[in-house]
Amino acid sequence: MKSHTAYLTLTTPERCAIVNITGRVEAELARSGIKEGLCLVNSMHITSSVFINDDEKGLHRDFLKWTERLAPYAPESYDHNLTGEDNGDAHLKRTLMGREVVVAVTRGALDFGPWERIFYGEFDGRRAKRLLIKIIGE
Amino acid sequence: MKSHTAYLTLTTPERCAIVNITGRVEAELARSGIKEGLCLVNSMHITSSVFINDDEKGLHRDFLKWTERLAPYAPESYDHNLTGEDNGDAHLKRTLMGREVVVAVTRGALDFGPWERIFYGEFDGRRAKRLLIKIIGE
Amino acid sequence: MKSHTAYLTLTTPERCAIVNITGRVEAELARSGIKEGLCLVNSMHITSSVFINDDEKGLHRDFLKWTERLAPYAPESYDHNLTGEDNGDAHLKRTLMGREVVVAVTRGALDFGPWERIFYGEFDGRRAKRLLIKIIGE
Repeated sequence: MKSHTAYLTLTTPERCAIVNITGRVEAELARSGIKEGLCLVNSMHITSSVFINDDEKGLHRDFLKWTERLAPYAPESYDHNLTGEDNGDAHLKRTLMGREVVVAVTRGALDFGPWERIFYGEFDGRRAKRLLIKIIGE
Repeated sequence: MKSHTAYLTLTTPERCAIVNITGRVEAELARSGIKEGLCLVNSMHITSSVFINDDEKGLHRDFLKWTERLAPYAPESYDHNLTGEDNGDAHLKRTLMGREVVVAVTRGALDFGPWERIFYGEFDGRRAKRLLIKIIGE
Repeated sequence: MKSHTAYLTLTTPERCAIVNITGRVEAELARSGIKEGLCLVNSMHITSSVFINDDEKGLHRDFLKWTERLAPYAPESYDHNLTGEDNGDAHLKRTLMGREVVVAVTRGALDFGPWERIFYGEFDGRRAKRLLIKIIGE
């Protein structure tokens, strides 16, 4: 069994943003030399997400509006913010969108449907944050 | 390390539906010969889900009502639909229910609790859509 | 390839609760002897979750309030409860929080960001429930 580990660092200028990271994951897969296996991609922070969906800008705006509707910023309404933070909402938004994805690796490629792409979802940005890519297989 | 890859195709007559696919995953596990490992099952589309829950029809109706409440069809309210699509809601519904599951394989079987079953959740059906099963282990 | 399987049993005195299980997962990882691989942790029940977030009590209260807001107990409003159950809401709450996490194992440790910890989220407790830990790698 082979394994490959890589860390990406991302800083978004906005508090909330969606960034396509598919190419960076594919580059690590090529580096790994793994042909058959599983590829885990996860945020290493608890106020941001990794998820798979469509690379369409209107949809990304819909995701940001929807997470704001279901988990509004409203800093005074979260017990977490009694610690001095103002990002209680970001923990909930990331929960909606998910921490991680696991993608099949088949014949040396991410085994994707026609529209699947991997995104980083940021809900408390403007600072450097890390992602993990772990690929195991042969 | 062994690996096994299979693709399922499903067409639901309804726009939104929940289909038990446990037996089809178990058939692929038997075909793989893998006794210890991990089994990934994911939708290859971005408007449908794979999730684990209970095989109870009332609960499935509850899931469909709940996803409609939190992400209503309302085609005029999504920026994604400015592309000519009407399925903005389906991308959100699938996000709630999840893209994928990872299941442990132990002694040649899916290592499930008493009520766990694997379901395909469709939110923009009436056309052929694909699922991926990837099993790695020994 | 090595694999290691363990089952934890938890009983929470409250109907809804959040329990830090990171130490118990780390103990199983040490037992496995695996240095590079993937670690799956999942609830074996369909009314409870495993998720990764921050070990902060205010945030945990926020999670419980938020899941109650998006999927209220309201036993009369779920078709699932026509079976005689009163836990329709718990199936939805667990769906929001997620069934499982997959964590990278690097140099013999859970490869975590600074604040990542693993939690069991209970939404229909007061009885013994089981979790699964499956680690594969080398």
